[in-house]
Amino acid sequence: MSDILQVLGKLGSQVDDKMLELLTVGASKDFQEVVFHQVQAGGKRVRPALTILFCQAVGGNTEDALSAAAAIELVHNYSLILDDVIDDADVRRNLPTTWKKFGLNFGILAAIHYREAIEEGSIRTPNHAAISRIIADTIRELVEGERLDVLFEQLPSNEEYTEKHRYRDVSLEDYETMIGYKTAALIRASCEIGVICAAGSKEMQKAAREFGWKAGIAFQLADDVLDLFAEEAKLGKKLGKDIYEHKLGNVVLLQALPLLSQADRDYVLQVLRSDKPTENDVKKVIALLKQTTASDFVQKKAKQLVNDAKSALDSFPNKEATQLLETLVDFIYQRSF
Amino acid sequence: MSDILQVLGKLGSQVDDKMLELLTVGASKDFQEVVFHQVQAGGKRVRPALTILFCQAVGGNTEDALSAAAAIELVHNYSLILDDVIDDADVRRNLPTTWKKFGLNFGILAAIHYREAIEEGSIRTPNHAAISRIIADTIRELVEGERLDVLFEQLPSNEEYTEKHRYRDVSLEDYETMIGYKTAALIRASCEIGVICAAGSKEMQKAAREFGWKAGIAFQLADDVLDLFAEEAKLGKKLGKDIYEHKLGNVVLLQALPLLSQADRDYVLQVLRSDKPTENDVKKVIALLKQTTASDFVQKKAKQLVNDAKSALDSFPNKEATQLLETLVDFIYQRSF
Repeated sequence: MSDILQVLGKLGSQVDDKMLELLTVGASKDFQEVVFHQVQAGGKRVRPALTILFCQAVGGNTEDALSAAAAIELVHNYSLILDDVIDDADVRRNLPTTWKKFGLNFGILAAIHYREAIEEGSIRTPNHAAISRIIADTIRELVEGERLDVLFEQLPSNEEYTEKHRYRDVSLEDYETMIGYKTAALIRASCEIGVICAAGSKEMQKAAREFGWKAGIAFQLADDVLDLFAEEAKLGKKLGKDIYEHKLGNVVLLQALPLLSQADRDYVLQVLRSDKPTENDVKKVIALLKQTTASDFVQKKAKQLVNDAKSALDSFPNKEATQLLETLVDFIYQRSF
Repeated sequence: MSDILQVLGKLGSQVDDKMLELLTVGASKDFQEVVFHQVQAGGKRVRPALTILFCQAVGGNTEDALSAAAAIELVHNYSLILDDVIDDADVRRNLPTTWKKFGLNFGILAAIHYREAIEEGSIRTPNHAAISRIIADTIRELVEGERLDVLFEQLPSNEEYTEKHRYRDVSLEDYETMIGYKTAALIRASCEIGVICAAGSKEMQKAAREFGWKAGIAFQLADDVLDLFAEEAKLGKKLGKDIYEHKLGNVVLLQALPLLSQADRDYVLQVLRSDKPTENDVKKVIALLKQTTASDFVQKKAKQLVNDAKSALDSFPNKEATQLLETLVDFIYQRSF
């Protein structure tokens, strides 16, 4: 596991340099501190590592994939800046969020600028036409995922559209649609674009997509578990963020609800629907969820997806790279932060 | 003048169809009403008309330019959706703004979706590589223009970044930098991209850029005059919007301030800096500005720019199209709404 952290660290620092380079294009000096803030807050850089490792798995090198990898990580950070506005989130990675630090207006302007830095990266890839098409499709999927995530929130809204389309119940199928768009689509794109950077075959593209999709779903399942049960200090944000944000779109919650007594279920839903859940409420909800088998079930499901993802790697020639991809997907599933 | 309205109407309806087609890609049924709202509110469609007419001026036809023209108009509407969030604007064209109608979250998601519809249009043009480069550069310029526009606002802010970088004084040079980015850059791009759609020469591209830049500055000068002195019913928004929004970045204001008595100048600045200017305050400010020669001066300047712009049209072969471009730029300058 320390190997993969080393690989992530090394690739991540190259990706960070490239992201800053792309963000600098067309940004006046006074604006740079605004646009740098989000990426300088750090991150595991898992998505660009996938892009680079898939490029290597086909036979390409890091340099071939670096602009694309940076573009992919910028897509992720673009979505985070705006998610933080939408979720009214103040803190990420123990730092103020971009809109909180610089105000809503500059948060929005930073996000628009990110999208053009993504385009800048895409233009510099070996296959701009194919890659810009995938990026456009993927960002639209992120929007649809975020739209559903918002509509899965349980706090009654005084906005007509939200209230009209809000989900009173969320099925596991609804949930999978949402996380497919919101999380797995970008991880799938990260993998596929890596193959394209090395001019890999259509079959390899397909295998990379399959790997990315399954690893992406597993990643989100693990994330949902961590949101409720991680060690708060390592998480870098409040435990139970989904509950504070009234989100029914957490798989552990959805799995646990039918397993609770009627009284406990009503209590959990009441907390989700209350305007400002107290820390005590959230702790009690987490304790109730912990008593069920939901978390075990979700972790087993994630484990299965991870194993399925790995078997999509057979056709790639560079076994050193596929070995790292296997370790990376294990890391995603086992991580504790 | 009725000719050009007919041309705008005909081209506009083709552009509208194409915009809706591009916006539909990847938008779930429930989301379509959100993303359609902004373009269905209407607009003069001047920018896409410029794209199509420049394509024709080189010798191309409408179809060659239609996707690019729709992409250009979507850039404009993308910026309007987000400007309305940034300016906290409730009404545009006598309709609620997107964020006001659907809530902030869906306003932001609609805007992200617009950017991908722009990409979709760009991908469908005859020269995606060149056009996506110009669009990316232009959107970054719009961001910088909007950033300056926000920093030219005179209401003291409790946000650290805004207060640190806020302009206490705005020179005419600062103003021109701002409107160059915020308005002229996109009009320049509209013209240049039209030439590219018809594979025009580098010289024609340059001439189109010059036309667009000068027409764009003239357009903004005319807009600033209209914001203060138009007939309110025709304008579709409140007269003196810039004053309500504390904006010193209006050329009539900047020209008039040195011409006012110290007492009147202090009064105007006090209104601009007050939290909520009353309708009476705004009317009094407009009356003071009307007494100066500022508006005449600005209109003369716009007229000069329009004439200079026209002389950039000499090298284009299709004189029917250049004639329409001349009429269009006159229309921009003379319009009363």
